[in-house]
Amino acid sequence: MTAPDLLTFGEAMVSLRSAGPLAAGGSLTMHLAGAESNVAVGVARLGHRAAWVGRVSGDEFGEYTLRQLRAEGVEVAGVSRDADRPTGLMFLEQRTADLTRVQYHRAGSAASALRVDDLRAPLAAGARMLHLTGITPALSDTAREATRWAAEAAAAAGIPVCLDVNYRARLWSRESARAVLAPLAGHAAIVIASADELDLVGEPGADESTLVADLFRRGVHTVLVKLGADGARAHTPDGVQHVGTLTVTAVDPVGAGDAFTAGYLSGWFDGLDLPGRLRRAATLGAFAVSTRGDCEGLPRRAELSLLEGHETGSVLR
Amino acid sequence: MTAPDLLTFGEAMVSLRSAGPLAAGGSLTMHLAGAESNVAVGVARLGHRAAWVGRVSGDEFGEYTLRQLRAEGVEVAGVSRDADRPTGLMFLEQRTADLTRVQYHRAGSAASALRVDDLRAPLAAGARMLHLTGITPALSDTAREATRWAAEAAAAAGIPVCLDVNYRARLWSRESARAVLAPLAGHAAIVIASADELDLVGEPGADESTLVADLFRRGVHTVLVKLGADGARAHTPDGVQHVGTLTVTAVDPVGAGDAFTAGYLSGWFDGLDLPGRLRRAATLGAFAVSTRGDCEGLPRRAELSLLEGHETGSVLR
Amino acid sequence: MTAPDLLTFGEAMVSLRSAGPLAAGGSLTMHLAGAESNVAVGVARLGHRAAWVGRVSGDEFGEYTLRQLRAEGVEVAGVSRDADRPTGLMFLEQRTADLTRVQYHRAGSAASALRVDDLRAPLAAGARMLHLTGITPALSDTAREATRWAAEAAAAAGIPVCLDVNYRARLWSRESARAVLAPLAGHAAIVIASADELDLVGEPGADESTLVADLFRRGVHTVLVKLGADGARAHTPDGVQHVGTLTVTAVDPVGAGDAFTAGYLSGWFDGLDLPGRLRRAATLGAFAVSTRGDCEGLPRRAELSLLEGHETGSVLR
Amino acid sequence: MTAPDLLTFGEAMVSLRSAGPLAAGGSLTMHLAGAESNVAVGVARLGHRAAWVGRVSGDEFGEYTLRQLRAEGVEVAGVSRDADRPTGLMFLEQRTADLTRVQYHRAGSAASALRVDDLRAPLAAGARMLHLTGITPALSDTAREATRWAAEAAAAAGIPVCLDVNYRARLWSRESARAVLAPLAGHAAIVIASADELDLVGEPGADESTLVADLFRRGVHTVLVKLGADGARAHTPDGVQHVGTLTVTAVDPVGAGDAFTAGYLSGWFDGLDLPGRLRRAATLGAFAVSTRGDCEGLPRRAELSLLEGHETGSVLR
Amino acid sequence: MTAPDLLTFGEAMVSLRSAGPLAAGGSLTMHLAGAESNVAVGVARLGHRAAWVGRVSGDEFGEYTLRQLRAEGVEVAGVSRDADRPTGLMFLEQRTADLTRVQYHRAGSAASALRVDDLRAPLAAGARMLHLTGITPALSDTAREATRWAAEAAAAAGIPVCLDVNYRARLWSRESARAVLAPLAGHAAIVIASADELDLVGEPGADESTLVADLFRRGVHTVLVKLGADGARAHTPDGVQHVGTLTVTAVDPVGAGDAFTAGYLSGWFDGLDLPGRLRRAATLGAFAVSTRGDCEGLPRRAELSLLEGHETGSVLR
Amino acid sequence: MTAPDLLTFGEAMVSLRSAGPLAAGGSLTMHLAGAESNVAVGVARLGHRAAWVGRVSGDEFGEYTLRQLRAEGVEVAGVSRDADRPTGLMFLEQRTADLTRVQYHRAGSAASALRVDDLRAPLAAGARMLHLTGITPALSDTAREATRWAAEAAAAAGIPVCLDVNYRARLWSRESARAVLAPLAGHAAIVIASADELDLVGEPGADESTLVADLFRRGVHTVLVKLGADGARAHTPDGVQHVGTLTVTAVDPVGAGDAFTAGYLSGWFDGLDLPGRLRRAATLGAFAVSTRGDCEGLPRRAELSLLEGHETGSVLR
Repeated sequence: MTAPDLLTFGEAMVSLRSAGPLAAGGSLTMHLAGAESNVAVGVARLGHRAAWVGRVSGDEFGEYTLRQLRAEGVEVAGVSRDADRPTGLMFLEQRTADLTRVQYHRAGSAASALRVDDLRAPLAAGARMLHLTGITPALSDTAREATRWAAEAAAAAGIPVCLDVNYRARLWSRESARAVLAPLAGHAAIVIASADELDLVGEPGADESTLVADLFRRGVHTVLVKLGADGARAHTPDGVQHVGTLTVTAVDPVGAGDAFTAGYLSGWFDGLDLPGRLRRAATLGAFAVSTRGDCEGLPRRAELSLLEGHETGSVLR
Repeated sequence: MTAPDLLTFGEAMVSLRSAGPLAAGGSLTMHLAGAESNVAVGVARLGHRAAWVGRVSGDEFGEYTLRQLRAEGVEVAGVSRDADRPTGLMFLEQRTADLTRVQYHRAGSAASALRVDDLRAPLAAGARMLHLTGITPALSDTAREATRWAAEAAAAAGIPVCLDVNYRARLWSRESARAVLAPLAGHAAIVIASADELDLVGEPGADESTLVADLFRRGVHTVLVKLGADGARAHTPDGVQHVGTLTVTAVDPVGAGDAFTAGYLSGWFDGLDLPGRLRRAATLGAFAVSTRGDCEGLPRRAELSLLEGHETGSVLR
Repeated sequence: MTAPDLLTFGEAMVSLRSAGPLAAGGSLTMHLAGAESNVAVGVARLGHRAAWVGRVSGDEFGEYTLRQLRAEGVEVAGVSRDADRPTGLMFLEQRTADLTRVQYHRAGSAASALRVDDLRAPLAAGARMLHLTGITPALSDTAREATRWAAEAAAAAGIPVCLDVNYRARLWSRESARAVLAPLAGHAAIVIASADELDLVGEPGADESTLVADLFRRGVHTVLVKLGADGARAHTPDGVQHVGTLTVTAVDPVGAGDAFTAGYLSGWFDGLDLPGRLRRAATLGAFAVSTRGDCEGLPRRAELSLLEGHETGSVLR
Repeated sequence: MTAPDLLTFGEAMVSLRSAGPLAAGGSLTMHLAGAESNVAVGVARLGHRAAWVGRVSGDEFGEYTLRQLRAEGVEVAGVSRDADRPTGLMFLEQRTADLTRVQYHRAGSAASALRVDDLRAPLAAGARMLHLTGITPALSDTAREATRWAAEAAAAAGIPVCLDVNYRARLWSRESARAVLAPLAGHAAIVIASADELDLVGEPGADESTLVADLFRRGVHTVLVKLGADGARAHTPDGVQHVGTLTVTAVDPVGAGDAFTAGYLSGWFDGLDLPGRLRRAATLGAFAVSTRGDCEGLPRRAELSLLEGHETGSVLR
Repeated sequence: MTAPDLLTFGEAMVSLRSAGPLAAGGSLTMHLAGAESNVAVGVARLGHRAAWVGRVSGDEFGEYTLRQLRAEGVEVAGVSRDADRPTGLMFLEQRTADLTRVQYHRAGSAASALRVDDLRAPLAAGARMLHLTGITPALSDTAREATRWAAEAAAAAGIPVCLDVNYRARLWSRESARAVLAPLAGHAAIVIASADELDLVGEPGADESTLVADLFRRGVHTVLVKLGADGARAHTPDGVQHVGTLTVTAVDPVGAGDAFTAGYLSGWFDGLDLPGRLRRAATLGAFAVSTRGDCEGLPRRAELSLLEGHETGSVLR
Repeated sequence: MTAPDLLTFGEAMVSLRSAGPLAAGGSLTMHLAGAESNVAVGVARLGHRAAWVGRVSGDEFGEYTLRQLRAEGVEVAGVSRDADRPTGLMFLEQRTADLTRVQYHRAGSAASALRVDDLRAPLAAGARMLHLTGITPALSDTAREATRWAAEAAAAAGIPVCLDVNYRARLWSRESARAVLAPLAGHAAIVIASADELDLVGEPGADESTLVADLFRRGVHTVLVKLGADGARAHTPDGVQHVGTLTVTAVDPVGAGDAFTAGYLSGWFDGLDLPGRLRRAATLGAFAVSTRGDCEGLPRRAELSLLEGHETGSVLR
């Protein structure tokens, strides 16, 4: 087995979605969720080889998770089954047409038992890029240590690291997050964050340009700042570029950030220049927001052209 | 507020049911589950006043649980919302036409934080019967202590106690269960158990008549042994009576035992003689197995007559 | 337009079916219902020309009813839209696997405004058989008068009349029904009844042979006694024949009697001998009970052979 | 039992909703409907005590209605079951994305048998506010008399009366409505109406300021004029205030007016000033229009904050 | 049987629609599809007599097609069942909120076996208008010949011909289409085309006014150019008129063009002037785009008024 | 990549299932179907390595097929996408509770373009068993040649061949089938057939023992005769063994034969003795018939024990 293009690890969850207020009862539909697995799926659908590493339960939810990842062609040889811990669950409630609420049942999940040993073999096998998110180190002590180890080991092995900050307020405080993520960023080549997450990898409260300059000093070569409906800004030593969002009908914001990341990395695997990478990132984001589901809407390569003519602008609702 | 007929407490869960193999994905439907709340619903539907005490989460699953209990007319004034702990979940997978598999996500649930203080006011208000199951003491140390306290307090206050053994192998071993349940049975007036659960309230491995005799010596006046498709046996100091099941088409065994208990207690509240109580118990069991859902199929009083003509025999599939 | 094979009239309703207890809420599915329209659909599916006459509302439920009848190829030129009265509704609740409950919302329905004038033109156009049921005269005074008039007019015109007793206890008492139906039977060539309905067209409490003999004296030439799972008995002046039910898996008894009638009449239109007519009646009954819905399961001609090999015996559950 | 905050009475119906043209058939979902019960649910969800009085059928639709009201914590001790009359039904057809059509089956419903005696005990128990709508007096003579009696009795007992005009053209003419509603308004403290309903409680064709002035003269202290997507105007002796609608995605206008009323009354129960009451009214309206269902979308107290940041403006589609 | 108002022929298909990406699996719903049958349904719903001629399979999909057409009151006496060839299928995938993809399984379908003999009797019976589309001649050699024959025969018999170009790139090239359709247009009284289809009935690349002038010279008296969200332009010898689209919420563009045609022809049958015909065409288009389904949303005559007040402008999303 | 345990090839189809009569419309659910892919899935779920070779369309149905196979862990490296030909479809109509009807849309499918070149590389890579069915050679000339070539090449390479006769009357006559399958059987080690298929690999009309003896002479070492509800008979040179079916509730016979084959082969891969292989074959058959779907119900290894206690006997309905 040769090295994949993308190696990533983290928590894959079963997302149960309601079509209306949860308190009223009714039915829920099963989906695969998880920031890192979303990125892996997005990259794999575009024809790149993506490997996802993690721990899932020994029961049917673990089986479901594996079935979905295999269905997408994501390599799962590095996945462990945990007989004692459950797969994390999340509930996504469509409270009103505009309001989606999330509830996690992930404490003590199989994924939180991730540890350095789970990552040794996959990292030894190599990859063109290692993708991390700031969610994994918030899951448990062992997961934090595994993340730190992976970032260092990748950097040492010359594998570029992409870090998506992905701050989750329900898992830890901004202070705790910063203490862990800021050092991690020092091993990264690419840092991705929303505007209000950026100071979690640098000085609290500093402005964007200061934070970016600091990241460049620490070895990061690209900083992508996600701006929601306004698109994204890419900082490189050559300057700043902006990309808008494509004008599509947004029906589900879930997974848009992960789609953006997957598109950017796919462009990088294809050797596109920065505008090309940003255009692809925006395209994947547009697919994500205009389809219901966490990663169901991500395009296969032949489908990229479906949104080719779309101008970038602001997302319609 | 005057005293209810039935007082019970324990864990109410949200049950999510699939119509086929869970690993294949698809949709799940929400139901209220929990042995004690099933009994409360069964009793309330027949027009008795039933109060259920417990702890549910502060989120929408807690809200759902309360909505369902209130909808059934079960009194919930003694229910606490727990902002920090989730409502327990269970997944009911229809693996094949004959095989149902259950998965619990109840560790650390709001219900497991039940404690003596939650029960003081409800018990002080009194009841004609206190119903306990052997599930609650398996949830946590505080829940065990609360169960023990309630049994003693009720006995002291002259409130008869009904104990349904309801052994759950996933929560504790038979030995641990026996150490807790056997003493509890000493406070009970009615003990309900399946044939293989009976020695959990007495000497390990002893035969039914020995175990029953021992329970009588300890103050129990009725022992109901559930025999599944073969109905049930009622032991009283006056001898043994058998009741068969009603010949209905069984589509869902879940909740049949709780329905049986609810029917028996309802008959007791109505002052029926033993054959009348057993007949009603069998009738509720028949409603339960011939309707999908945990307690959706339980009859209202006017519906009891719908199965009046049915002979008791073995359950059809 | 030449005369149809079958002419029938009565009340077509929209049947709303639940898959579980109605009090629990959920969803209902729309179906076409009505004893006479079921017979018309059954006959039309087998390639005979069937005309149904009646009144439906001017709103969307009337439209639905017409759409369904037209879809089945039933001639509806004689149907009137009533702008002021609603289409009758019925709710079919699957209370348990074995218990179906019906609720009617048909008082004051468009159908109940049926009157002699609605039937003049259709009867003048002729038919090979006029089919009546004992439901229509129970709907209203004008509907009763229309039924009486039609039976007399058909008899006078040499059109044989088939009367299915179809007693509905919610609409009238046995005494009221007998006062109307017994005279009606005097105009009939074929009388169809379940065993406990037979004395509604004769002397109260008389036994079957007495009642049949009396009907023969009054001009009836065939009496079909429906026996549920045991099939049916056909009395003719030549003697008695029995037909069993076909061994199929029964999932829905609704409409089985109407299917039996449609099959018998179809056999009659095809010139089959009595055993052939009874076999077809049993075949249509088998299709009806082994499909959910009021008339959805009735066979088209080419489908008759699907149950050809089935022996007649008792219906399985 | 102490007095509730809100006392209201009227007709609760089972609403059956289709997702497309009704004539095409398909499935319908059950919902609780009824202007007064919607207000009761809205107020109860915010933690106030609300009592609803009315008559429902003895069958499963009556049971469903009670289950839903109890689920919401609405007090139903004053509800009667009527063994002979059906629960009113309404059909809500989504004819096109923009057009919803309603069909009522409520003539002769249990609710229409409401009479003064049903209201004596509830009114004697008292309340902080009595809420009436102009629908109830249109149901029947006894319901009209009951409404009139209640308004007078409340006024006499010092219980402020809130009257929502809610003109239903299918139930009566504007002239008939005015003859009944104008006198009723003389007992009210708060009158709520859409702009084109306002002259139903005053001089035909008079302009808003004239009508408001007249109402003030007759003792009303607040007149709320609902303006649909443009929000509402509140007239008090201190002047006129306007509140816009919150900018949410509207998916279902049904129940928006009732939500507005519930929000206003909740603010009044909480002692808010007029701007606070209007803001809450607008917030509940926004929840209602951005969720499918008659009252499913109404917020619980903790959910009020979900729309806190929303500016008031025009409703988006 | 007298002549219908509209006679049309072509391929009716079963359309299977998904609510999301097809590759993810899930469920599909059945609908009737086909440009000519859509027009027939649209015309029939407005009370005109419409006859559709074609070939459908002998299996259940053929049966479904016939049931739907009969349900709508479309005359199907001229339809043949083909025991050997399947009914054409189409799959409509809602890939994203904005993107619908179609897949055809129609090669070798029953419809493609259409031949001149199928049309002789229907044409001999006459009609007020014959409607053709450019899809039928693309199905097969015999269907092309049948289309040509029908256009000539109708013209010879004085039956005006309406030709909707309806170019389908998957079935043939623009060159092949032009070679067939341009001569066909010479028999037409009305030609309907989108702006980019117009030169398929004239000189390649010519501008609209040139093409229209040429069509007028060849005997066409009305040319309708469909402009999507911008409405349509009608060219007659008297000049050009424009009609906008009605402002409705568009949820499904499928069938909008057929609805437009049906509306125009209905207006023509009713003897409306050009503005009246265009207004009706726009109204039917508005119904079509604001309802999901191919022809489910088309209005019945009484429903036309539902959109009466709507201004024509651009279609909202 | 090392050699898989099982290598198989053929046509994988998308199966669309209705829950009732197809002519009535409604919804259909997507499933993966195909005898060989069912066997591959069954074997893969038990932890063996299975490779499936075939051609699927380039569109979303091809994508769906691949997603499902990958999800099950079946190796699909040898699958080709065919841009020009569709994936075969089948429609499975639940006509009555007992009658399932199948309709194929597979003529000219991608799978029918299978040719020798598709199989060269997979066979060169080796396998412990090659599984063929009698369906593949009926698809097209090239598929027949590919099947013949594969059987010979495997035999030559020492890879044992398993042939499941699987006669499809819609694809070819018994005579045509015999002309192809009888020679194929000469290369097989295992032949599987239902009782009435057995003479398709030998002398027409010969009895079972004669046919088996002849197969043994031609090198077959095991002949499995499937007997439906009566289980199966295994002929080996050592004699005949019978295995019954497990007593489960049968809800769907589709795929039972494939499940039986998969179980037998899995037992062979595990080195079980003949009774062990037959027991596993019966177990998989029981899982298949007691779950809806073509292969959804097949067990994973840990699930084999779920039916461990079941006696073999006759299948219940």
